[in-house]
Parts: sequence; structure tokens; C-alpha cells
Amino acid sequence: MKHTQTGLMRPVNLKYVKVTDAFWSPWQALVKDTIISYQWDALNDRIPGAAPSHTIDNFEIAAGKKEGQHYGMVFQDSDLYKWMETVSYVLAANRDEKWEKVMDEVIELLEQAQEEDGYLNTYFTVSHPEEKWTNLKDDHELYCAGHLIEAAVAYYEATGKEKIIRIVGQLVDHIMTVLGPEPGKKRGYPGHPEIELALIKLYRVTKEEKYLQLCQFFIDERGKQSPHYYDVEIEQRGDDQVQRGVHNYDYFQAHLPMREQTTAEGHSVRAVYLYSGIVDLAVELSDDELLQVSRTLWENTVNKRMYITGGIGSSAYQERFTVDYDLPNDRAYTETCAAIALIFWAQRMIQVDGHARYADIMERALYNGALSGISLDGKRYFYVNPLEVWPHTANHRHDMHTVKTTRQPWFGCACCPPNIARLLASLGEYIYSANDTEAYVHLFIGSETQFDFNNQTVCLKQRTDYPWEGKANFTVSAAQPVDFTLNIRQPEWCQQATVQLNGQTLSYTTNKGYIKLQRTWHPGDQLTLEMEMPINIVHAHPEVRENAGKVALQRGPIVYCLEEADNGRNLHDIHLAQDASVQSTFEPSLLNGVTVLTGKAYRTDSTHVPDQLYTTQVYPKIPFEFKAIPYYTWANRGEGEMLVWLRSDQTTS
Amino acid sequence: MKHTQTGLMRPVNLKYVKVTDAFWSPWQALVKDTIISYQWDALNDRIPGAAPSHTIDNFEIAAGKKEGQHYGMVFQDSDLYKWMETVSYVLAANRDEKWEKVMDEVIELLEQAQEEDGYLNTYFTVSHPEEKWTNLKDDHELYCAGHLIEAAVAYYEATGKEKIIRIVGQLVDHIMTVLGPEPGKKRGYPGHPEIELALIKLYRVTKEEKYLQLCQFFIDERGKQSPHYYDVEIEQRGDDQVQRGVHNYDYFQAHLPMREQTTAEGHSVRAVYLYSGIVDLAVELSDDELLQVSRTLWENTVNKRMYITGGIGSSAYQERFTVDYDLPNDRAYTETCAAIALIFWAQRMIQVDGHARYADIMERALYNGALSGISLDGKRYFYVNPLEVWPHTANHRHDMHTVKTTRQPWFGCACCPPNIARLLASLGEYIYSANDTEAYVHLFIGSETQFDFNNQTVCLKQRTDYPWEGKANFTVSAAQPVDFTLNIRQPEWCQQATVQLNGQTLSYTTNKGYIKLQRTWHPGDQLTLEMEMPINIVHAHPEVRENAGKVALQRGPIVYCLEEADNGRNLHDIHLAQDASVQSTFEPSLLNGVTVLTGKAYRTDSTHVPDQLYTTQVYPKIPFEFKAIPYYTWANRGEGEMLVWLRSDQTTS
Repeated sequence: MKHTQTGLMRPVNLKYVKVTDAFWSPWQALVKDTIISYQWDALNDRIPGAAPSHTIDNFEIAAGKKEGQHYGMVFQDSDLYKWMETVSYVLAANRDEKWEKVMDEVIELLEQAQEEDGYLNTYFTVSHPEEKWTNLKDDHELYCAGHLIEAAVAYYEATGKEKIIRIVGQLVDHIMTVLGPEPGKKRGYPGHPEIELALIKLYRVTKEEKYLQLCQFFIDERGKQSPHYYDVEIEQRGDDQVQRGVHNYDYFQAHLPMREQTTAEGHSVRAVYLYSGIVDLAVELSDDELLQVSRTLWENTVNKRMYITGGIGSSAYQERFTVDYDLPNDRAYTETCAAIALIFWAQRMIQVDGHARYADIMERALYNGALSGISLDGKRYFYVNPLEVWPHTANHRHDMHTVKTTRQPWFGCACCPPNIARLLASLGEYIYSANDTEAYVHLFIGSETQFDFNNQTVCLKQRTDYPWEGKANFTVSAAQPVDFTLNIRQPEWCQQATVQLNGQTLSYTTNKGYIKLQRTWHPGDQLTLEMEMPINIVHAHPEVRENAGKVALQRGPIVYCLEEADNGRNLHDIHLAQDASVQSTFEPSLLNGVTVLTGKAYRTDSTHVPDQLYTTQVYPKIPFEFKAIPYYTWANRGEGEMLVWLRSDQTTS
Repeated sequence: MKHTQTGLMRPVNLKYVKVTDAFWSPWQALVKDTIISYQWDALNDRIPGAAPSHTIDNFEIAAGKKEGQHYGMVFQDSDLYKWMETVSYVLAANRDEKWEKVMDEVIELLEQAQEEDGYLNTYFTVSHPEEKWTNLKDDHELYCAGHLIEAAVAYYEATGKEKIIRIVGQLVDHIMTVLGPEPGKKRGYPGHPEIELALIKLYRVTKEEKYLQLCQFFIDERGKQSPHYYDVEIEQRGDDQVQRGVHNYDYFQAHLPMREQTTAEGHSVRAVYLYSGIVDLAVELSDDELLQVSRTLWENTVNKRMYITGGIGSSAYQERFTVDYDLPNDRAYTETCAAIALIFWAQRMIQVDGHARYADIMERALYNGALSGISLDGKRYFYVNPLEVWPHTANHRHDMHTVKTTRQPWFGCACCPPNIARLLASLGEYIYSANDTEAYVHLFIGSETQFDFNNQTVCLKQRTDYPWEGKANFTVSAAQPVDFTLNIRQPEWCQQATVQLNGQTLSYTTNKGYIKLQRTWHPGDQLTLEMEMPINIVHAHPEVRENAGKVALQRGPIVYCLEEADNGRNLHDIHLAQDASVQSTFEPSLLNGVTVLTGKAYRTDSTHVPDQLYTTQVYPKIPFEFKAIPYYTWANRGEGEMLVWLRSDQTTS
């Protein structure tokens, strides 16, 4: 493994990380054994009762193998590409003849669907050839290309097969004949950012500067005024905007030049894919100004506009960020893809700043707002991840129609299911980083990896029962003693950690949130980290009006919720006792094995409630033992109420 | 004054009630001196910056006095009719040459706009003559006719002038050539009920049975299935519904036959106008079954679907009722018209059942959810009356776009401003009722009225400083001693009342919430009622999840709110102390003179709040004296936060 820039760290590539974890390995097995097969069936319209996909059909029509019209979203192709990326990550860990054959057939299909000039997008090829590249703002051609590039890089890295790289090379070459700074080309950039980070991936495997330059072009052009490119293309089309939906340009993060943006605006997935892309570009160009833009946007996002679950984008309307501290629980939109995008961004910022605060957010989104998007059996999904649900209103109020109270088999807009699948399959890539002299452990996930220090290979084996226990063991293997610094994240939820080396307590210092162990490591060194994992009672910033008087329960990285299945109905009525004495218990047979929290609460004695809406009577309360489950496991036991933020007196000191 | 049915009571007609009240007389003076003039200007498009009305223009075009097209809602005419009704009520109290002349000119304009066959509706006459009576579901022709009838009855009663009665007579005769049970006529009924109660008013002044029968036809046909009339007319038009908006028939209260309806459904103003109409019809027909339908709908409305302000209709989407206990505060739609309609319905139920619980709701809606719809200067209005407002989100979240944070000079859909005006002008009609042997006092409003008992006229004079004080004095005047029962409502908020007759304490019994004083009354008798008016700390039913852990402050009939102007920003952060020791003080110079409430609360010490969203730190609180103002006065001092339901420990017993 090579690090191109000294000092700056890079994630340890998937190929060098083997996940062997009690919590995550079953999820990865689910992807391998169930999800890629289930989603392949979905893309082929073989799931009874699921929303139609038509994705494979679209490609077969474009390839001339079938007759018909395109069906689905303008970005329907990307569902296949994300699935291909998922399969590639699975193959990276375990080559598998069956799926590799399917992949190769799919790649052949792509080749057949690709036009002579390199163009590849079934929506336009099949049904709207005259509209190609006429509406970058709305039409997702670059977005689809980006996902294809990501799939291509992943498949190439997994198998070494270059055909798909050639396909995307032709596609990008075609894009560069249409878009670019040269006279006669359109100075356009994607309405849905995604291709930026994909181009950097392609650049990193091919070393072709043109991909870097195209990415830079997209980011430099973004939001330029007088004229604004989106106005130019509207005028060129001569249509009126109403036909395609009028959005302010902040929806596209194109309201200001990229370097002038300071707050997270618009469609949250677009925003955070873009922010990820600018970090990638900034790293390659050593562009500190652009990195500072990312840092500023990060602070606004995580300190003003993020749910405790790591969910972002609090408004269903335009799936967007709104304003600071506007974080309603029952109408949280918090698309699964947005939490995933936040993980991408966090991972990139970790490498740049080497600060654990990014990894803390990455972990928060991973264990909560992202993982909540998939059912325990891998076959049901949430697009929207609210922090409280009362089916009685969610199913009836029109302004809550995006909130689903049960997990869905598929979606008409199916961006989330393959997105969570590719995240799970590539999880190994988020655990470790390294530079020439240091190794970093960001996540506590049982795994084996390796680093190179001074041309010597060091193997590191991590064993842990995380997230249920705060202990992690690390074993160092190497041919001979080797100097390097091992940095292990001390999570924000942990106030106290102890480190033992070969049974002896080790004193340590922390730097930017990492326990820093700089020493000569000997083969067979055993390092044990014990992190105190108390049940944290979390308060929201007082400006988050929705959470005034409420607390959330968190243990380790896991945010908890109450469900009707455990606590009966009317969860809002439950009130945490002053001395709640919350206890944690691992329940091996519940929800695939989870640690639950129980404690003392009160609820109204419903035998004494008159049938009137308003009264001066104080309703009598009865004590009640609540039970909280990890948020990510909600809605796996049928429809019912769910609540994260719980009323409590503990907000008063 | 005549009562047509023994036992059953009737409201004392406006003509016999002179309001002389410290609280309400200024509002009535405002209607007389400012509002009718302001709204006349609005109808004539002479208010700078207000939404255009074009209402008078529409009539002038229909009358052939101007060229042009109709502008505005299909029900734009009704804005004029409600204004005419308002003017009529003002004239009933004080004939006024200037406004009577304007009215007579308007009536002449109506006569000119009326077609030969009696048809009168400017939208269709001017711009869509071929569509008359083709879409009763959506097109409001009967709704407009209803409002014209109400105006006509009011003007006739105020002035004795019959021309407008002739105009509406011709219109209704025309309607009866089109609609009705006879072969060849359409079996249709209004999509927006209103005409039902209007027809009963017309019947009561004309004694023409045909009006009663038409009303009965509309109510009997409503919601009949196989075929459903709205399906029939859709088929007859041959258009597809999408063009006019698809609504389930519950939106129109036409999902079930009227007598089978048990829950308040659909558009709340339509619903409650309809429910008022069925009471009127049931009374005239002595139809107990229909009365029972009204009682059932009433219980559902006030015990499951009403805000503490008397606001109803909790969803902006379709301005509708939703499901039981769904009463969000920041998204409360609670149209001003809906609270007014609830007053209409309550007034009717009072007469039927003689029970104070209806008057309690009438009073609640009057002093809170209806009065909040108009500014203290009479020139700014709310259509939507939320129970909490945070301008930061209300002005930015798309799903709150109906919530206005400042009062508006007029609306494109301007149903509310003239509706509140006609209510204020006709307030005298809501205070008293009588039958042959009993007088009822429903509201505590300084006033003079008269009753007939055994052909003897009894004058009753009420003096009070209500709603700020709970004392009311009544003076009986008559030529000689007279036997009758005086029933005075003991409001639900009052646990303890004392009654003195000529300085001597009188023991009394209550019946259906009224203090019942059956005796021989002597000329000059002085009755004093002292009602304890504590500050009530009100709790919502535990099923109202929005209000869990919160209380509302109410004193007498007045519901209070906190405003940013008095309490600074972030009202959600304020937490009522266990011993809040809430005090009331009359502030004569504040908001035209109001009693304010002050008490002990806590709020976060903002000097100790870190710039992060989530923390295990308990934020330190500081004591704080809150100040609450009457809800109806909010938003008279610029834009800011407002909150009715306040966090409190007092919900735990």
C-alpha cells in the first residue's frame, strides 16, 4: 500500500481489512447472502408487492435487446450502479464465481447500451435522445455517470478487470467533449453532485490528470453568477421552468460560488456528496482554502443541523436542510442516503485533520441514522428516518405523508437500499487509516489489517464486543520490532479509558481525540483498551425547541428509542423519573441480540382520565419501567409508536 | 318577540340587545367606525399593499356597468355578502344614513347583476356561464347564495326594507327550478355547506315552507350513495377530476348520509356550518334523530379535535379535521372562520339542550380562537391561528407555509376578515335566550335586553368588567312583579360562585351548568353574581401528545400565551416553576387594556451553553419571571415568538 503524500493519512483500503466482528460480520454476511440477491431481484422486478424498478429492462432496451420505453426516475440507472458497487465490495473480500459472472454480464450489457460516442444513460438513450445535456440542473446525467465510475473503480479494484474502466473512460471522454472551459463547450456542472468524488476515485486508480481537472472544473464553475449556468441552459432550452419544478439554486448548492458557501443548504444528499467531493479535490490539489470551506460547512452541519442519530436534512420538502436548530422529531426527513453521505464526508475529513471529532460523527451516523435504513433481515428499507412516530397521525396527516410507519420492500425512488448495501459491504474501509509513521483506529470493529512502516509489514488484529461493550484488544504482528505511532480514538461518549500493554497499564496522552501510543512495537504485543461505557443521558442544545424538557438515552455509540412493542401506546406520556436508575442488559434473543436499557419512569394512570380535552385536574401518574432498544432496530416488530427524545425532569439542574 | 315553540328557547334577537360593555363595546365601535369602512375599501381595491379583491368590480361587470373578466375565487361574491351582513348588524343597533345609502346602492347593483331567471353569481355570469350548476361539489354557487340570504335577512331585520329579500327569493326560486327531488331536477347539494342555515333564517322571517323544504332536501341528499351525486355530476361533465382537485368525499362531509356521520370530518368550516344547519332544521322539524347526530358530532369535536382556544381543523392540507387528539400547536391551522362556525353551532345547541357546556365552548372560541383573527386596530387579520410560532422556522419550513407570523391586511381568499366582523357586530345575539317562562344569560357582557313573560315586558340590565373580573350585576326592571326563572351560566372555569339579591346572599341550585333562580322578581331587583376567577393551570388530555409535560394558563375565559416581546426569545426553553405563584394584574395601557399573568419560571443560562448540539451536560437554569398576555392579543407588537403551552413540572402529581 502506498501513501502518496507524507503526513496526510489515507484510509486503509478494503483489500487490506478483513472484518471479523460479532456485530458487523453478520450484516456483511447478510449483504453477501441475501441483500445483493434481493436487490438484484428488485432491479429485475421479481419482488412481489415491491414498487417497480425496470432498471435492467431499461438497459436491455437501450442495448437493443428489448423493445419498450424507459420507466422510472431520470436517475434509475444509478440503482444498478450502486448495486454493482456493492457486489464489487463483496467480491473484494471473497471472489465469487456466480456474482462475478452476473457482473460481467451486466458490464457487457452496459457496453451494449453505451452509444458510439461514449454516451451512457438509458433515460435519454431510450426515450429522450434529443434532450441530452440540455438540463444539467435537473437531469442527473452526471450523477449517474458518477455512480457508474464508483462501481467501475470498485470492480476494478476487486477483480483487476479493466473493461468497466474502459467503459467509464469513454463516457467521461464524451462528457469532456460536451462540458468544459474550452470555447464551444458548455460551462455546466451537475444539479446533483456525486461525480466529483467519483472522478477523484477514478483519478486515483488511473492517475489520469484529466479526471482531476474535470472535477476541478465542476467545483470551480458551481454557483458562478452573471450568468448563472442554470439560467443559461434554461434560456437555451427555451422552456419555462415550471415544467421541471422550480427550485431556488440553493437546493443545488449553486446559490453561491463554492468557496463562498458557509452553511449547509438545500438537498442534503446533494450537499454532502458535494462536500465530500471538495475534500477529495482539495487534498489532491493541496487546496487549503477549499478545505477550510469544508470545515466551515462541517461545523454548521454537525453543530446546528444534525439529529442525534446523525440524520441530516430535516425537511421532506426538497429533502433539504432548513435553518439552524430546526430539528423536528416526528417530521425528521433524515434520508438514509444523507446519513450515509455524512459518513463519506466524515471519513474524508478524518484523513485531512486527523481529528476524532469527525470519526465521532461518522460512528454516530453509522450505528444510528444510516443503519436504521435497513431491516434486520435486509429486505425492508426506510428512506425517511424520523425520531418519533405516532402511526395514528403519520398515516393520516398530509404533511407527514413522507413518514412511513413500516419498512418498505422497495421505492419508486430507490436510492437508499443499494446505498446502505454498498456502505455495509465497504465498511472495512472506514476502520483504519495510516500515513508513513502512524496508524489510526477510528472504529471499534473486530478485524484484521496491515500497515507498512519502513518497508516492514505490520499486522494489527482487533477483537471487540463493541458496540455492546467498551473493550477492544489489539494484537500486533510483525517480523521484527517496529517503530510507529498507534492512534486509537477515544470516543466522545467515553470520559475514561484505560490502556494495558501486555497486561501492564500504560499511561498515555491524547491528541485530537486519539489515544497516542508512540513506541517500538514488538511482535505479539497485546494492547487492551477499556472504555467506560456509561448510559449517557443526552440533552439537546436549548435552541432545539423540539427537545426542550427531553433527554435521549445513549450508550456507547448507540442511540436508543422506546417502541410501543415494549412500552405500550402513548410514548409521549412517559416521563423519565428523576432517579431513573437506567440499567443496561444484553438480550441475546431480541432483535438479533441487542443491549437494552431499562429504568424508572412515570405515565398517566389512564383509569383516571376523563373524556375531555382540557382540565385543571392533575392526572395521577403511575410508576412504570420503560425499556429502550437501539434506534437502528426500530420497526422490526410490526407497526407501532416510536420515540427517541423522552420527557424528563433531568433537564433542570 | 315571539317564541314559536314552548319550552325550546330562542336567542334574544339583536334588536332587543344593546351592548354596553367595557370589553366588547370598543370592538363594536371599531366595526362601526373603522372595519366596515376598511373592508369596503378592500372590496373596492383601495387598500395599498393588500391582496387584490376585485369583488365590487366583479359585480359591476356582471351588472353590465363595466367591461372585464371575473377575478378571484369562485366564491369571491361571498366577501361582499358577509360585509353586507356586518353592515346590517351595525345598522340594527344604529341606523346610519351613510352606510344605509351604500347598502341600498349595493343592493341595486345586485339587482342589476342578477340574471332574468334569478341567477346571481358573478363568477359564472361574467366568465363561465356555461358551467352554472355543473359542479356543486366544488363551485360554491350555493355557498354564495347562502351568504347572500344571511345578508338579506340581516338587512331586512335591521331596516324593514324588502328589496333584498325579493332578490334572494328570486335566486332561491331559480335554485329550486334546477335542484330538487322532482324528476328532471338535479339531486345535488352544496360542496360547501352554508345555505342550509341561511335557508332556515329565510324561512323564519318569511314563513315560506319552501325554504325549509329546500334545506331538508340538501341535508337528506347529502352523502347518499349509489349513485353519489358528486359522481353523477362528474360523469355528466365528462371531465376528469384532476382539473378541479381530487378530494375524498369526507372533505365535503359527503362520505356518508348525514344521519350516519359520527365524527367531525373534512374541511372544518364546511363541517361546522353544516352541523349548525342541521340543528336549525332539526329544531324546525322536531327531528330528534338529527339532533342526536349533532350531539354526537359535537362530542367528537370538542372532546377529541378542538384546541384550548376553541380553534378547530388542525391540518392546513384541506383546512381539515384529521384524527382524534391530533392537535399540533405550531402547525395548528384553526382557521378564524372555523372558530366562528363553532360559535354558531354552539349557540344553536344551547337553545336545544339548554346546557352550559355549549356556552362554555362558545365563550372559549369567542374570546380566544375567533378574536385572535383580528388585530386590535381592526385592520390586520389572521386566517390561520397557531398556538405557537417560531418565526425562524415558520418563515422557512415549507410544511409551515400557511402559518403567517404577522397579521395580514387582506387575503386572496378573504373569508375570515368579514366573518369576524359580522360576528362582532352581531354579538348581542349570543348573550341571552328565553322561552315562555325562563330567561338565560349565557355570556357576561355588559348589556341591556328585554323579555316577555305573560305579556309583561321585563328589562334586564347587565353590568360587568368581564373577562377581567368575575363579577356581574343584573338589574331587573318591569312595570310590576313578575314570575320567571333567571338562568345564569356558571362557567366551567369557575368552581365557586356566590349570588346576592339586593345585598342578601341567595342560595341557589344549578341545572345543566346554569344557576337557576326561579322566583317572583320585583322591579328594581339587583342581582350580583360573584364568580371566583382563579388562574387556572390547564392540562391537556394525555392523548394530546403535543402537550405532554405542558400546561396552559387560563383565567376566566381567557387563554394566555407568552410572547417574545415580553419574555425574550426561545420561549420553548421556559419552564414553569413548581411553585410558579402566578399573579394577575390589569395593565390598562397594554394592548388596549388587558390582565396579564406573571409568575416564576426557569430558563437556560445561555452564558453556559456550548456550541454543540448534544451533550451530557445539564445546562444550568436561571430563575425568570414570565409574563403572559391574552392569546387573542398576540402579534399586535411586531413579529416574534409566541407560545400557549408551556413546559411545567405541574403535570406530575
